[in-house]
Amino acid sequence: MTALFDRHREMLDDAVKAVQSRAFWTPFPEVPSGKIYGESAKSDGEAAYVALLGQPFALPGHPESRRAGAEVSPFGGALGITYPAADVPALIAAAEAAAPALAEAGPEARVGVCLEILTRLNRISFVLGNATMHTTGQAFAMAFQAGGPHAQDRGLEAVAVAWAEMTRFARDAIWEKPQGKAAPLVLEKHWTLVPRGLALTIGCNTFPTWNSYPGIFASLATGNPVIVKPHPGAILPLALTVRVAREVLAEAGLPADAVLLAVDEPGAEVTKALASDPTIRLIDYTGSATFGGWLREHARQAQLFTEETGVNSITLAATDDFAGMCANLAFSLALYSGQMCTAPQNIYIPKGGINTDEGHKSFDAVAVALAGAIDDLLADPARAAGVSGALANPATAARLEAVRGQGRVVRDSTGEGLLRSPLLLAVEGDKPGPQDGECFGPVAFLIAVADTDAGITAAAEIARRKGAITAALYDTDEPRIARAIRAFAGAGVNLSINLTGNIFVNQSAAFSDFHVTGGNPAGNASLTDTAFVASRFTRVMWRRPLRQAT
Amino acid sequence: MTALFDRHREMLDDAVKAVQSRAFWTPFPEVPSGKIYGESAKSDGEAAYVALLGQPFALPGHPESRRAGAEVSPFGGALGITYPAADVPALIAAAEAAAPALAEAGPEARVGVCLEILTRLNRISFVLGNATMHTTGQAFAMAFQAGGPHAQDRGLEAVAVAWAEMTRFARDAIWEKPQGKAAPLVLEKHWTLVPRGLALTIGCNTFPTWNSYPGIFASLATGNPVIVKPHPGAILPLALTVRVAREVLAEAGLPADAVLLAVDEPGAEVTKALASDPTIRLIDYTGSATFGGWLREHARQAQLFTEETGVNSITLAATDDFAGMCANLAFSLALYSGQMCTAPQNIYIPKGGINTDEGHKSFDAVAVALAGAIDDLLADPARAAGVSGALANPATAARLEAVRGQGRVVRDSTGEGLLRSPLLLAVEGDKPGPQDGECFGPVAFLIAVADTDAGITAAAEIARRKGAITAALYDTDEPRIARAIRAFAGAGVNLSINLTGNIFVNQSAAFSDFHVTGGNPAGNASLTDTAFVASRFTRVMWRRPLRQAT
Repeated sequence: MTALFDRHREMLDDAVKAVQSRAFWTPFPEVPSGKIYGESAKSDGEAAYVALLGQPFALPGHPESRRAGAEVSPFGGALGITYPAADVPALIAAAEAAAPALAEAGPEARVGVCLEILTRLNRISFVLGNATMHTTGQAFAMAFQAGGPHAQDRGLEAVAVAWAEMTRFARDAIWEKPQGKAAPLVLEKHWTLVPRGLALTIGCNTFPTWNSYPGIFASLATGNPVIVKPHPGAILPLALTVRVAREVLAEAGLPADAVLLAVDEPGAEVTKALASDPTIRLIDYTGSATFGGWLREHARQAQLFTEETGVNSITLAATDDFAGMCANLAFSLALYSGQMCTAPQNIYIPKGGINTDEGHKSFDAVAVALAGAIDDLLADPARAAGVSGALANPATAARLEAVRGQGRVVRDSTGEGLLRSPLLLAVEGDKPGPQDGECFGPVAFLIAVADTDAGITAAAEIARRKGAITAALYDTDEPRIARAIRAFAGAGVNLSINLTGNIFVNQSAAFSDFHVTGGNPAGNASLTDTAFVASRFTRVMWRRPLRQAT
Repeated sequence: MTALFDRHREMLDDAVKAVQSRAFWTPFPEVPSGKIYGESAKSDGEAAYVALLGQPFALPGHPESRRAGAEVSPFGGALGITYPAADVPALIAAAEAAAPALAEAGPEARVGVCLEILTRLNRISFVLGNATMHTTGQAFAMAFQAGGPHAQDRGLEAVAVAWAEMTRFARDAIWEKPQGKAAPLVLEKHWTLVPRGLALTIGCNTFPTWNSYPGIFASLATGNPVIVKPHPGAILPLALTVRVAREVLAEAGLPADAVLLAVDEPGAEVTKALASDPTIRLIDYTGSATFGGWLREHARQAQLFTEETGVNSITLAATDDFAGMCANLAFSLALYSGQMCTAPQNIYIPKGGINTDEGHKSFDAVAVALAGAIDDLLADPARAAGVSGALANPATAARLEAVRGQGRVVRDSTGEGLLRSPLLLAVEGDKPGPQDGECFGPVAFLIAVADTDAGITAAAEIARRKGAITAALYDTDEPRIARAIRAFAGAGVNLSINLTGNIFVNQSAAFSDFHVTGGNPAGNASLTDTAFVASRFTRVMWRRPLRQAT
């Protein structure tokens, strides 16, 4: 049962070390290069993706009472793939039937299975990249990275943290208590790791694998069968994942039904019925705060791990690289059309402007420079497509239209349909406005504030109230930077300072950056800290007087 | 700020090691001996306790709008001590005012303070013993141990696990990402530990310190101000604790109000108002499942850690030491009049009897032998008092009277008022009866079952349904023992096998036994695993391009 564990032991140990040191590390190269993934990997992956289109998706042995699936590529065209669908009781029954063997298998066998699944997923990263691209609207390069190796990193990180926690305390002990002059009391003690129950992972439309892998792998490694419920608009990347997981489970002699797919269609979602089932004891959820609130109210039998809505901010105070700052922010705003949960929305700028290496810049000069940097970034249509991708959802386009009138247009959104460039709106910081809530998509507000400290205060305050995953600051004044560090720590937001060049506030690196802190309404879970794994199992002891060897 | 940390560093390291190895360890001797605690410690402690009686209890600087307290010793007499009481908003305001400095102090300073508090509490173990005795009804020897060193062990264990978790990941890192032939991206990253918010610890009547210290110290070590809400019948042990904590905090330059006392009187409890306050983000609770349910419903802003009601069981199958088994069980049943959360209640015995080293014993013969062992244990009145103590609460005596008619009396309870010996009732296992719920106090049910496996099944089933903290099995058949281990693991109950001599199913040793598993309704928290500490704080990062040394 531990052949897979032994095979991947070195990778596991390296992952545990990386998680501890928080230094850069990954076993899954992010570059979609033929030299790494095989000369024909790119074309093979595309061909494999195309071959899936218009076909029933095979998941051998999976519960199935009908077929479902109605995905449409944001780049055009229905995928036409149908997936096996089963009603909720059938899925629950299958998961429950898989539970005893998964629990019995023990940590080594389960962790070995998880590592093998991730390794095989890595090999099909090009297929996953195409599947992610055509369900999320991410441009291919990003879809490859975020849907493939970066998601695999996040899954591996969860396995590593789960493994570290499962092995944190001795599994067996001899307990010898002195009794003065009498013989000591000697007990042998043994602990069994007992999984919590069934797990449900609720995927999102924009990052179906990246946001789901931590929960899936944390639950599976700790012995909980996982029902994977994809967003109806982004099923394929998770269906591919479930297929690989089931293959590896079966090969390892474990029940394939330890990982199940719960497919539904827009308007006929099964999520509520699944989430409120009393056997579901763990739920990992990425999505709106509204549905998060529903889960808190109605799925109280389960431990809930969430990533929800937030308002990310940038505060501008001063910079010694004005052009670099503007180029960096332009990329952060344009990347995947602002649909990352880490993308900035509110940009706080002092009314009186900021000091830069190019001299003092007024509020309007900063606004014009930011708009210009976006124009420059997106001037070449091919490059623009490669950065911005498409909107995952027509609702985002509608939101963009609706907000346009709520501020002074500094840069208008260009494009049409699901292809839209960033809209920049200038608003007053001392009045209520659209900046007071999340406006998901390619929209940013340039908010005039009295001074930098007012900007920091406003950014921290909205993070505390509405949630935030990221914050950024550009400043050259170290005491003020120190104040900002404290303010954003208090608001539970990770802060990036003075990023220029090829590193962006949107980026969260597995093994190093904890994604979401759990310290504000943007989510109660942090990827991947100990709290994310520790309550997925319990330890149960048996003890008896030590038997002397005979 | 870290002088206290440095002073106690060795103890901390040893505690962390013990927690990892689960071997026997303690820095706080459990023997109430003058050789250890000082020649006059016993009489000094008693005198110090007596001096507290009938007086206002001093808590310098503590919020106070009136005096409250109406404790009565189960051994007779009102304590006559009044404590400073303040309304809920005043307590919350004081705790909130203390929060920033406590957060800012950082892990080393806070852990140092916690270790110094525990060390000073250890020095006043005789005072704590008397205080515990006269609020809980425990006999002195037990009150000394459970109220003093064993509680201190549990507090230290929580500090050690919190420290291990706070230092689990690097606090600072240099993250260097290769960029092919270009210069690598290099970021410096730093993480701030951010406490969750205000913490509330709700104490119980029977183990005011032992059950409260884990939550108090876990919250304090991780930077959350703690409001300690004692049971109105057992204030003094926690008031003494709060006083020491406040002294140490002040000496360390931290706000004394980081630990506060919320005193109330029976019938005018402030618990609900405190627990549902939006600033309270952590609640540690020991008590009834009924009030646990209230907290789950009304204190949903807080992370809740509970120990609740349960039905502990013993299953008898066979023994090679019948006399030793009976004597061991007699002690477990009589100790503190069955008022331990770990005390057995349901004893499953095959209808056809059991095999022993004294030959086959019928159900009735086992019952008679158990009754006789209790009689023997309690034959000497002084010894009986030293084992049984008194009932903490007249309600327990009433419960004893009420249940007497619900089975065949095998051994009647003797004594009167709050001094009562165990009642043994024989009941049928295949009919509903008083064994189906918790009957807190000196009552045990001898339950006739078809065979041992039926007993194991019934014991595991009631644990799963009603909760259980302990289970015991006496058996000589190893395959059946293996089945029992699996059954009780599945039910989330720690199992003790074949205990005889001076070790009892009721006993849970800090640093080795996890108390409560969190895997059944007897509680959602386990003392002290990682989940108990990990969600008491979050990690927030700031990162910036690495500045070259100048």
